[in-house]
Amino acid sequence: MNLNKLQEAMRNLGLNQLIVASPKQIDYLINRRFECGERLLALVVKPDRAVLVLNELFPIDPINGVELVNYNDCDDGVKVVADLLDSGHVGVDGEWPSAFLLRLMKIRPELAISDETDIISDLRAIKNPDEQEKMRKASQLNDQVMHEVRKLLRVGVSEAEVAAQIHDLFVEISGGDESFETIVAFKENCADPHCMPGDKVLQAGESIVIDMGCKYQGYCSDMTRTFFIKENTMKEVYDLVLQANMAAKQVVKPGVRFCDVDEAARRVIRDGGYGEYFIHRLGHGIGMSVHEPYDVSGSNERIVKAGMCFSIEPGIYLPGVGGVRIEDLVLVTEDGCEVLNHYPYDIEVID
Amino acid sequence: MNLNKLQEAMRNLGLNQLIVASPKQIDYLINRRFECGERLLALVVKPDRAVLVLNELFPIDPINGVELVNYNDCDDGVKVVADLLDSGHVGVDGEWPSAFLLRLMKIRPELAISDETDIISDLRAIKNPDEQEKMRKASQLNDQVMHEVRKLLRVGVSEAEVAAQIHDLFVEISGGDESFETIVAFKENCADPHCMPGDKVLQAGESIVIDMGCKYQGYCSDMTRTFFIKENTMKEVYDLVLQANMAAKQVVKPGVRFCDVDEAARRVIRDGGYGEYFIHRLGHGIGMSVHEPYDVSGSNERIVKAGMCFSIEPGIYLPGVGGVRIEDLVLVTEDGCEVLNHYPYDIEVID
Repeated sequence: MNLNKLQEAMRNLGLNQLIVASPKQIDYLINRRFECGERLLALVVKPDRAVLVLNELFPIDPINGVELVNYNDCDDGVKVVADLLDSGHVGVDGEWPSAFLLRLMKIRPELAISDETDIISDLRAIKNPDEQEKMRKASQLNDQVMHEVRKLLRVGVSEAEVAAQIHDLFVEISGGDESFETIVAFKENCADPHCMPGDKVLQAGESIVIDMGCKYQGYCSDMTRTFFIKENTMKEVYDLVLQANMAAKQVVKPGVRFCDVDEAARRVIRDGGYGEYFIHRLGHGIGMSVHEPYDVSGSNERIVKAGMCFSIEPGIYLPGVGGVRIEDLVLVTEDGCEVLNHYPYDIEVID
Repeated sequence: MNLNKLQEAMRNLGLNQLIVASPKQIDYLINRRFECGERLLALVVKPDRAVLVLNELFPIDPINGVELVNYNDCDDGVKVVADLLDSGHVGVDGEWPSAFLLRLMKIRPELAISDETDIISDLRAIKNPDEQEKMRKASQLNDQVMHEVRKLLRVGVSEAEVAAQIHDLFVEISGGDESFETIVAFKENCADPHCMPGDKVLQAGESIVIDMGCKYQGYCSDMTRTFFIKENTMKEVYDLVLQANMAAKQVVKPGVRFCDVDEAARRVIRDGGYGEYFIHRLGHGIGMSVHEPYDVSGSNERIVKAGMCFSIEPGIYLPGVGGVRIEDLVLVTEDGCEVLNHYPYDIEVID
């Protein structure tokens, strides 16, 4: 159980208590999923003990090595957490809503509190062989769907129609568990990196951005490809984005910094004259969550390690005109990286 | 714009600055929806000024009365927020992730910070006539779907099949925008108030709990009915829950406390000998979110006011046996309440 790994890390770092709050982190640590909405959920972890604070409304089977403390809708859940804490320092999960944190600070004003999310992020960032296999499988399924998507693209179809058909493909091929809402964007809509599919109808010469992913046994895939219909009207831009994608993958290996990976791609686009149109980080960690630590960005000086998995997704976004993004997932190996998806990169101009 | 109402409330309460962070609160205040995932989003509100801090990745049209400050993936978004704050006291939105709050406390250690979510909750809790009309309409659609649901229930059908058919009904009748994941539970699964639909197959004599809702122009409905198939095996329990539901609606009017409403229902169930099996609050506020302030619970001494909208949903949950919940939405009027849904309450034993 990953809880044991966390407790070992806490012992090594001298952290005596940690409040874990996000359902995803808790699932990672003790293999249980909770959906408690606005009701407090917390796993109080100490090097030799773990206590789950849970509203009695959510019945669960016993968990080996985890004590259960229930509260009810009339109790102050934060008070229950506070009573479990020793004096001194306590780490908290950065996703814990401020309302709970501020209440804790009121009940236990003497506590020294800091954000210790990274201690879990460091564990989650490195995928074990079983997780790596699930990530590979998720990306294979995503590849399969992308091969079908290509066939859906024709003059006259709308973004929303394509998105709905992709949804059906995911149901058919991967059981329907998408990692995020699929992006289908045509022409100028491609210039908005998070554009949601709408009524826009595809015309000859337009760029088409498809950004999609599915889950396999709880682990996410995520891939973007850019197509053109009838005619490639953005050849220079496409080539540059593809070179940037390749350049970044070339430098990924244990020991480089995330900002170095970002820079490898960014340099290509900047040198090509489109620097100001690459408006986001190069990538993000991925695993049980589609976005998880750590960012592949110019401000992240953390070191890349073997077993980490993240996206490489350079893009050029030209307002009013169109956009190109090419995204792959990489898994860091001992001396480089393995690319998890295998859909081709060559420009595809669809007839 | 509700932003103006908030600024007026801040002036009245002497609150000089507030960091609003939840996308739903921001949508309520300035009529814009944002999905920024893990990226910082904040609306810094002062009595005479409002500044939206937004990653440049999310392009928006100008908003009247709101200044825009962009940051990018390499910037420290919290620093951007911190630079907008005056010294002294600042209120924060309780949904702001702790990571941002703790970072703010590090950058601006001299600030006095408190959770001031209630200032927005107080506004949102009271629905204006336009919102009331949307709430009514959403519940009418929900009634319509429930009339169809009844026809889906027969020996041999599974929870998941019924849930899928309800989904299709919502698509057909309300456009498909469900307020939450529909609960369909049979027999002993009814004893878990949040049971998700599974493979369980309906047999004669079993209880059936259906808890569902849809949205109309962004406003939610939420209703629960309990049916029986062939034979009502829990008549005493059903009658008690129905009496509790009626008793609570009877006492709702401006001036009573939420805990009084809870107690009106709870007393009926306790006096009937089932007190320990009613394991949750009586209800919750509802509007743009399916759960929003304030709770109808034994520990909430706040006063009910005209225009508030919340659920009344007593239940009795018998582990291993079955459960009954009957839920309605009420809108508080000048001298009582209007029940927003109109599906009948009488025990329905389906042949």
